[in-house]
Amino acid sequence: MMGRIICAGLGPGDPDLISVRADRAVRGARHVAYFRKPGRPGQARRIVQGMLAPDAVEYPMEYPVTTEIPFDHPDYNDALAGFYDLWAARLAQLAQTEDVVVLCEGDPFLYGSFMHLQIRLQGLAQVEVIPGIPGMVGCWNALGQPMTWGDDVLTVLMGTLPEPDLIRHMQGSDALVVMKTGRNLPKLRRALAASGRLADAWLIERGTMPGQRIAPLADVADDDCPYFAILLVHGHGRRPMARVAE
Amino acid sequence: MMGRIICAGLGPGDPDLISVRADRAVRGARHVAYFRKPGRPGQARRIVQGMLAPDAVEYPMEYPVTTEIPFDHPDYNDALAGFYDLWAARLAQLAQTEDVVVLCEGDPFLYGSFMHLQIRLQGLAQVEVIPGIPGMVGCWNALGQPMTWGDDVLTVLMGTLPEPDLIRHMQGSDALVVMKTGRNLPKLRRALAASGRLADAWLIERGTMPGQRIAPLADVADDDCPYFAILLVHGHGRRPMARVAE
Repeated sequence: MMGRIICAGLGPGDPDLISVRADRAVRGARHVAYFRKPGRPGQARRIVQGMLAPDAVEYPMEYPVTTEIPFDHPDYNDALAGFYDLWAARLAQLAQTEDVVVLCEGDPFLYGSFMHLQIRLQGLAQVEVIPGIPGMVGCWNALGQPMTWGDDVLTVLMGTLPEPDLIRHMQGSDALVVMKTGRNLPKLRRALAASGRLADAWLIERGTMPGQRIAPLADVADDDCPYFAILLVHGHGRRPMARVAE
Repeated sequence: MMGRIICAGLGPGDPDLISVRADRAVRGARHVAYFRKPGRPGQARRIVQGMLAPDAVEYPMEYPVTTEIPFDHPDYNDALAGFYDLWAARLAQLAQTEDVVVLCEGDPFLYGSFMHLQIRLQGLAQVEVIPGIPGMVGCWNALGQPMTWGDDVLTVLMGTLPEPDLIRHMQGSDALVVMKTGRNLPKLRRALAASGRLADAWLIERGTMPGQRIAPLADVADDDCPYFAILLVHGHGRRPMARVAE
């Protein structure tokens, strides 16, 4: 009897925002794996606190410590590749006979880590992915206003991008989401200012979770932004233009 | 006793992908409102088929017929504004004493129609919005591959935009979502070709729903694309660049 590897997207953080299907998978799981940093409980594991069956076996997949290695150095990739190889092999072995649920924050296909396992599991195990409400959707819901309407353009940017790229996208888009903030905040603030969007930017930390924090970016100090905080700029409600160009 | 107006985001279409909170709200609702086109069952209503309580009272909010009016004509806006005014007043009246659940496909704050009611209900009723998995997330889940990873830029575009704007965004972004397709398909195809993305574009219709259709855009005829079908182009897995510019 062949098992499956089921990646359950858990949504933005509030367990009540997990889908009915993922909720069922998590509560019924006998084997549960999740990523975490060494010594941390792990965000995905925290979301399902109190939901796991008492006899569920847990597999914390602890990222290798890479803080000493620059992220563009080959050793950084080697360390991560070995880590994903190892866990793909372990989960594939387990899935020979058992279903395994892999917990993932947000939606697994939107900047998720599960893809590194999924690529390695091809041909080795049956994989199913359950979509989730992305973290950014939870964040803009926490702000309580429509993120986009009409013909707004929405752009999702990583704070790690070069400043000129950030400015170009920020100028060209109506609504903006910026992830991977943290130490990139001074650069992001300059880019938002250069594109005239700084006054409209919000910082959301732990959206939909206990300790949720919402602040106008202008009120946030440069050293007061964790890496997982998200910046949002709402759309304009762009309207169809006279179609001269067509 | 004051009631609330609860907008329940229903996700991409599969009722199993509704959040636990929205599922509970829908099943427990005594008053249920939803948008639909005249003579149609309505997509949101269809998602919750079999979930409503037997004694739930339904309020189909039928859009006025505007097919004879050009969408940039003032009469078009007037017709819609009157329609939203009317329903905001009716729901606010009902919410004086009762909870009302408004059904919305996808996530209500991402290009949702509920915002037109929400604006009008300010100060008249207590409004709560439950986020949902956006339709585009269901569509990229149906394709079974990561939509974005690394530092990919994701851009969401409406097919109604002018062709030069579409080309500029398509050239500058890694991953693409295009909504409001339908009759805009020939223009979208030209824009994707001009930006070198046509061969990588997928069309998804009724993602996660019965009758789901997935096709390479190259195989789709210009007259075979409903307005609600979504185009997707996957990201590249953009990697951090050498940071010369910084």
